[in-house]
Amino acid sequence: MFKNVCAALLFGLGANAAAVAAGGPQDELEITLNSGETLLEFDWPILEIGTAEYEAGPTGATVFRFGRKVHVAIDVRGGGPGTVNAPYMELGYKYAELDTVVFAGGSWYGLEAVTGVATALIDDGVRDAVAWGEVPNLAMSVGSVIYDLGPRRFNEIYPDKRLGQAAYRAARPGVFALGAHGGGRLAVSGGFFDCNAKSGQGGAFRQIGDVKIAVFTVVNALGVIVDRDGRVVACYGGEDWPEDLYAKDLLTSYPATKDGDWQGPERKNTTLTLVVVNQKMTPVDLKRLAVQAHTSMARAIQPYSTVFDGDVLYAVSTGEVEKTAFEPIELGVIAGEVAWDAILSSVPEQPRAPAIDLSFEPAPETLQSHAGDYIFSDEVSLRVAYRRGKLVARASGSRDVFSIDKKSWTQLHPLPDGRYVVPERYPFVIVFEDDRMKINPGRWAQTGRRLETAAP
Amino acid sequence: MFKNVCAALLFGLGANAAAVAAGGPQDELEITLNSGETLLEFDWPILEIGTAEYEAGPTGATVFRFGRKVHVAIDVRGGGPGTVNAPYMELGYKYAELDTVVFAGGSWYGLEAVTGVATALIDDGVRDAVAWGEVPNLAMSVGSVIYDLGPRRFNEIYPDKRLGQAAYRAARPGVFALGAHGGGRLAVSGGFFDCNAKSGQGGAFRQIGDVKIAVFTVVNALGVIVDRDGRVVACYGGEDWPEDLYAKDLLTSYPATKDGDWQGPERKNTTLTLVVVNQKMTPVDLKRLAVQAHTSMARAIQPYSTVFDGDVLYAVSTGEVEKTAFEPIELGVIAGEVAWDAILSSVPEQPRAPAIDLSFEPAPETLQSHAGDYIFSDEVSLRVAYRRGKLVARASGSRDVFSIDKKSWTQLHPLPDGRYVVPERYPFVIVFEDDRMKINPGRWAQTGRRLETAAP
Amino acid sequence: MFKNVCAALLFGLGANAAAVAAGGPQDELEITLNSGETLLEFDWPILEIGTAEYEAGPTGATVFRFGRKVHVAIDVRGGGPGTVNAPYMELGYKYAELDTVVFAGGSWYGLEAVTGVATALIDDGVRDAVAWGEVPNLAMSVGSVIYDLGPRRFNEIYPDKRLGQAAYRAARPGVFALGAHGGGRLAVSGGFFDCNAKSGQGGAFRQIGDVKIAVFTVVNALGVIVDRDGRVVACYGGEDWPEDLYAKDLLTSYPATKDGDWQGPERKNTTLTLVVVNQKMTPVDLKRLAVQAHTSMARAIQPYSTVFDGDVLYAVSTGEVEKTAFEPIELGVIAGEVAWDAILSSVPEQPRAPAIDLSFEPAPETLQSHAGDYIFSDEVSLRVAYRRGKLVARASGSRDVFSIDKKSWTQLHPLPDGRYVVPERYPFVIVFEDDRMKINPGRWAQTGRRLETAAP
Amino acid sequence: MFKNVCAALLFGLGANAAAVAAGGPQDELEITLNSGETLLEFDWPILEIGTAEYEAGPTGATVFRFGRKVHVAIDVRGGGPGTVNAPYMELGYKYAELDTVVFAGGSWYGLEAVTGVATALIDDGVRDAVAWGEVPNLAMSVGSVIYDLGPRRFNEIYPDKRLGQAAYRAARPGVFALGAHGGGRLAVSGGFFDCNAKSGQGGAFRQIGDVKIAVFTVVNALGVIVDRDGRVVACYGGEDWPEDLYAKDLLTSYPATKDGDWQGPERKNTTLTLVVVNQKMTPVDLKRLAVQAHTSMARAIQPYSTVFDGDVLYAVSTGEVEKTAFEPIELGVIAGEVAWDAILSSVPEQPRAPAIDLSFEPAPETLQSHAGDYIFSDEVSLRVAYRRGKLVARASGSRDVFSIDKKSWTQLHPLPDGRYVVPERYPFVIVFEDDRMKINPGRWAQTGRRLETAAP
Repeated sequence: MFKNVCAALLFGLGANAAAVAAGGPQDELEITLNSGETLLEFDWPILEIGTAEYEAGPTGATVFRFGRKVHVAIDVRGGGPGTVNAPYMELGYKYAELDTVVFAGGSWYGLEAVTGVATALIDDGVRDAVAWGEVPNLAMSVGSVIYDLGPRRFNEIYPDKRLGQAAYRAARPGVFALGAHGGGRLAVSGGFFDCNAKSGQGGAFRQIGDVKIAVFTVVNALGVIVDRDGRVVACYGGEDWPEDLYAKDLLTSYPATKDGDWQGPERKNTTLTLVVVNQKMTPVDLKRLAVQAHTSMARAIQPYSTVFDGDVLYAVSTGEVEKTAFEPIELGVIAGEVAWDAILSSVPEQPRAPAIDLSFEPAPETLQSHAGDYIFSDEVSLRVAYRRGKLVARASGSRDVFSIDKKSWTQLHPLPDGRYVVPERYPFVIVFEDDRMKINPGRWAQTGRRLETAAP
Repeated sequence: MFKNVCAALLFGLGANAAAVAAGGPQDELEITLNSGETLLEFDWPILEIGTAEYEAGPTGATVFRFGRKVHVAIDVRGGGPGTVNAPYMELGYKYAELDTVVFAGGSWYGLEAVTGVATALIDDGVRDAVAWGEVPNLAMSVGSVIYDLGPRRFNEIYPDKRLGQAAYRAARPGVFALGAHGGGRLAVSGGFFDCNAKSGQGGAFRQIGDVKIAVFTVVNALGVIVDRDGRVVACYGGEDWPEDLYAKDLLTSYPATKDGDWQGPERKNTTLTLVVVNQKMTPVDLKRLAVQAHTSMARAIQPYSTVFDGDVLYAVSTGEVEKTAFEPIELGVIAGEVAWDAILSSVPEQPRAPAIDLSFEPAPETLQSHAGDYIFSDEVSLRVAYRRGKLVARASGSRDVFSIDKKSWTQLHPLPDGRYVVPERYPFVIVFEDDRMKINPGRWAQTGRRLETAAP
Repeated sequence: MFKNVCAALLFGLGANAAAVAAGGPQDELEITLNSGETLLEFDWPILEIGTAEYEAGPTGATVFRFGRKVHVAIDVRGGGPGTVNAPYMELGYKYAELDTVVFAGGSWYGLEAVTGVATALIDDGVRDAVAWGEVPNLAMSVGSVIYDLGPRRFNEIYPDKRLGQAAYRAARPGVFALGAHGGGRLAVSGGFFDCNAKSGQGGAFRQIGDVKIAVFTVVNALGVIVDRDGRVVACYGGEDWPEDLYAKDLLTSYPATKDGDWQGPERKNTTLTLVVVNQKMTPVDLKRLAVQAHTSMARAIQPYSTVFDGDVLYAVSTGEVEKTAFEPIELGVIAGEVAWDAILSSVPEQPRAPAIDLSFEPAPETLQSHAGDYIFSDEVSLRVAYRRGKLVARASGSRDVFSIDKKSWTQLHPLPDGRYVVPERYPFVIVFEDDRMKINPGRWAQTGRRLETAAP
Repeated sequence: MFKNVCAALLFGLGANAAAVAAGGPQDELEITLNSGETLLEFDWPILEIGTAEYEAGPTGATVFRFGRKVHVAIDVRGGGPGTVNAPYMELGYKYAELDTVVFAGGSWYGLEAVTGVATALIDDGVRDAVAWGEVPNLAMSVGSVIYDLGPRRFNEIYPDKRLGQAAYRAARPGVFALGAHGGGRLAVSGGFFDCNAKSGQGGAFRQIGDVKIAVFTVVNALGVIVDRDGRVVACYGGEDWPEDLYAKDLLTSYPATKDGDWQGPERKNTTLTLVVVNQKMTPVDLKRLAVQAHTSMARAIQPYSTVFDGDVLYAVSTGEVEKTAFEPIELGVIAGEVAWDAILSSVPEQPRAPAIDLSFEPAPETLQSHAGDYIFSDEVSLRVAYRRGKLVARASGSRDVFSIDKKSWTQLHPLPDGRYVVPERYPFVIVFEDDRMKINPGRWAQTGRRLETAAP
């Protein structure tokens, strides 16, 4: 491990070097490895998966690592994709080979997690720099990113080299965490209809005879997720929207379903997908499989592949089985169904905000005790004050705090259980713990710390 | 600077975190910033350039940094390109915008330098994570890599995040180092004809009226570099090859000019090019400029864009001038000429090996004093021994040491000035300094350290 | 009209020329213009549509003709597309312009109908050869083809220059025939599941405020056509298949739904689509619209864009309206819904075969009177004979006659109304009229003529 | 032959059909087959070539016909290409196969010659409509066109179906006419520098051991044609331009070499190229060969692949030899040299205009006898008059007659041999024969006929 260190030691550079400091601003952030309770389990030893997350974001990365060089084709469909080495996969050589596929948050900043896995492969001695002769041994790491930053969170932490390498080194076979984990840690879906449902990463696996097909996907889609009966699986609906929401109703009546305040879609959505088959395939067949499976996903996510999605699909053939009972086109059909299953499995349980309790009135001193300035990041802070018998809040940084803006005071409604609620379309719950404020405590919490000197 | 640190400090994660250590194996390597004596100077304040090199490789990176968002188009032509974010540049949005272009060594490992510059932009507070609203402010760093590893050097040091960020932070306007610097630190050219000439990075600038055009290129081409008279600019020729070598003679008589021992071309060559114009251009015109200028380079590098090249050209428009006297096609013609100038400027003076001096016989003890095992890296070491009155050497690691292999002893011929020579097609000079051996001392030196316990 | 004639006349070439005869083998075929009863009517004067059909095939062509140069983008998704001028539409110039879009049967042979419309434009004096100056005036005709030949019909008649030009000259505004007309004259759908439902061309139009969006499509898809409730709209199902067939049931249980005799999918299927909007769009936005709308069609056709489909979508902006209330992405969403409507409208009423009537026994001389050799084309003929009190048939050419093969006799079951039935999965009805035999009389009839000398 | 006729005859449609007349405006034009004296001869039976020309244009088509299905890859580089079936060749199926490649004049109108060859293949019974089973037998004809219309000629005759089929049926092995023939009948080169040299079609063939490589090209390039010493091979130079013109001088001093009157380049130039190798190749290798060989042509044509070129290269592998001594990359290098030879061979001898003879004064009645209106086409006519002792001319149609415009009278200078000369940069010679005027008599003549009633 860490073989290049020898070069440094050999030349005794330690003394006069390091004019440029190593290390970066996120080096102290805590990393969570392989979290998740709802697991997809499957039998496919060649494929190992690891996740790593910065809870402080939250954001994360998922690394798919193959036990040997596998073949890959890519289909890029969205308007704003983030990719590493995509043109290489467009059939430059006889076969495009790779070691790892990385899905990460952090928008373009998260690409560092993708390239960092390639260097982990050489640092750890798995691959080297041999590009000549019969057995080229360069590490090839490809991957893509989703946008999981503001306004959905209050900091700019991104998956970096350190996080990507941690996920890579944590990879193990047979298990994949479903929901808000890894690269899908802070994904959402349905922004086109202002649904902003919680989303995540999904996976599904199918074996028919000796054919294995797995699909893994991080669904951060502008469109809504739709099940096979046409139902929208997750959406914080508008006023008067039915509980049982059908995609066809949203779409055929568009633009009537458009929110009046709609400012145009949030610009950075993306669905990242990895299809893995064990059947050996020619580059052309693998490319066709990628196109066919990718296109089929327009059923499960509606609308799909818009200009504001950066959709990318990687199709990998491990080549473990020379020939099976299936034609490539049939693998494409089956992969499309496995992909639909994977998308559905990505949706975590949606948090719900409690109703306001107008009958409950806490003691004034209780409300007063929460007053203060809560700092979430350089850009985001919230001033909480006690005014005319109510606890109110106003954004005091450069950005809004969800629906609490800088212009006016918003009431925080108290609940008997000590929580506070801001009534709006999306859950907005606040708890105060010691010197901290947690917004939406739980899996999607954003935490602010109270400044020592409280505001008057 | 380092704004995300606040998140870490805020939550006091320092104590229980860091199960995953930050930092990497190359953190102690010395970095050389903005080296170079032969400089292209030009007047274009919006464009800043920095280089950083790990002398221990040697390898390096060059970062082109624009003072504001500029527009870009890409033309990928080679069979094995290394790229970041290429599909985004294929017109996904109204305009593809970027902040920096990075050219680096290290093959695919060097892509870490590209993504690392994007994160430097957010870490330093130049860009942030705002992707919505009127003014998206995400950092966009694109770039490509050349293969500059074995067999041309004896270690696997690669440009990493730290090196890329150092080059980015060292960027300054108006100056560009020509020759073996930055991303072209260990480039070669002409491998198709076994020339293996030293190469580097080149640049040229032309202003006509208010139009500015600059081209920067890292020439690590399989083909030979050719001047406007058809002469091969640099090549370690085969036996009986004329001093004045013409590309047409090499090419029209192919395969007669093929070396008998030829095992097929080295697999990783690449010419990376950046064309910058100040005229505002539509995405379509910029793409056409990229194609036209890239194609024109087939005159200056022959053959060009082979399957074993990973050629990539980035065309950037700064949009500083709304309209000039020139049509886009004319800018393409001029850019092609500036590119040819840039390619020619990339060629450093070629080191020459001294002739053997058969009349010179050093004292046996002098020869004996050099015996020992010299370690260059995990894979490469050289055993030097005194045998039958001669100093001889044999490769003792897993790889050959240029023409010295593992099977037999090769004589190191002494010169009166203390140097030793191995006669072959390419320069192979050795000097012993204290406990070190330098092969080809100077700009392209490889250094080995003698093991404490010498071999018998 | 016919302006180039002047050149011929001018030079008096009539006498010694014509070593090469003009005219072709299909010149005598009858052409049906603008047939169809179920019409889509819409208000959009700039767009004129004409259809022409060779009933003898049957096969046909549909020409969409714009009253001025309009802008176009293309999205090619299928494995085996037939196209004219596709690379030009990939943003070669500032705008890709066109005059006409042609959809035709005949597989690659039908491309002649596409190029023939361009020459009609110059022959008729609408366009000329002026490519220079401010107003280039070259005719641009693009288009694509479907495979509508064997085994679904018994001849090889294809849409040719003459048919394409006839459709072009018959174009008129405001009307589009739905079903088995024009380019969709002999389309089928659902071959992946052996449905082989009759298909055709569909169209839909929507106006919202001043935005107009129309979609026209020829659905010759390998997949089944699916409505917004997930129901398969048309399929000749296998034994025991439910009347109410759902795509999800066919697909999730695949390969169980695969026919045991399945030999792999028929190789030539294609869905051709034209999206027209009146809003002015940049080339990039138009391309994104094409990708988004095309992808959305995977909901209405399942599976879609397989290797054995040659799917092509043309997105045209007439630019009549500078700016509307809609963002391009919204136009994409709406276009996707209009496309779904168009696909559904393409399905004609499916012919049904009557049940066998075992109680009916016609007079032997009636049966005997039909005996003979019926010739459909060079490759296809059917021998009808009276054997052991039954009317039987055997294929006597080089190809089978649907389920009647060359190896054995198949009974033609008589019905009281004079028709005969061959019981199988698909309708197979025969009537005898004078010296002709019609298979499946009506819109999809194939007609054979009895040889003068009947078989014994 | 003409098998589909049977369908027409069978149904006796002759009587009531033909509401749409067959035949077109060019049916009476005389066709010249396989003309040419300077021939490339080569031994490769599988490859047959035919040319057909309409002298009245002049314009023409060249058809390359392979004796069996061969594999193809395409590289489209120019801004305004005309193509048929290009996306199919981008690796949709395992192999892209074809029967014929057609190069034609006529700009987009000439694409009719390409599709017409496919239908000739089925009409003649060479291919049929069988797309299913083990041996698909559909005809595949691809090809591209050059712009060879105004201002370089005075009519709008284009290669049509009839001409393409004639060329196809005239194909024979082993011979290819060099110069102004077939698709290159009216090609020019060097328009970027206003050279407007006569160009044509070129070909070269090389056999090394059992490897055969041929390149055929129609050079209608915006750039100048350059030999291996850097010399411009053909150019009507500007005033004071040296006889020995070097591309580097034109290009490095650009824009000084730009004509003061320059209005921007003529918009339709194109170099069409076909590379044929007999070695079996994978789709990926064939694509790389196309890219490499195409790029290499930037040496022989400068500038190349501009937005106003529609450059297309087809690379065909006949697969006759399973494996040779050469790697694909080497075939690419050799193909690049053969392509250079082919380009050079395309240049016909440039016609030169005689000098004015001021001492010669013909009899006034001789001059007067030529007065009249000469009609070249609907758009082009020339009024010749006798004024103040001189013969003068003025354009009297909607277009200029080369340098003779509509605004003023231009003198026609008499020569003792009966010819007349208009002195300008390009040859402009006139002869009067009976009631006709020939401009530039010979291979590039344009002929006008005198109106019966002469102008006063």
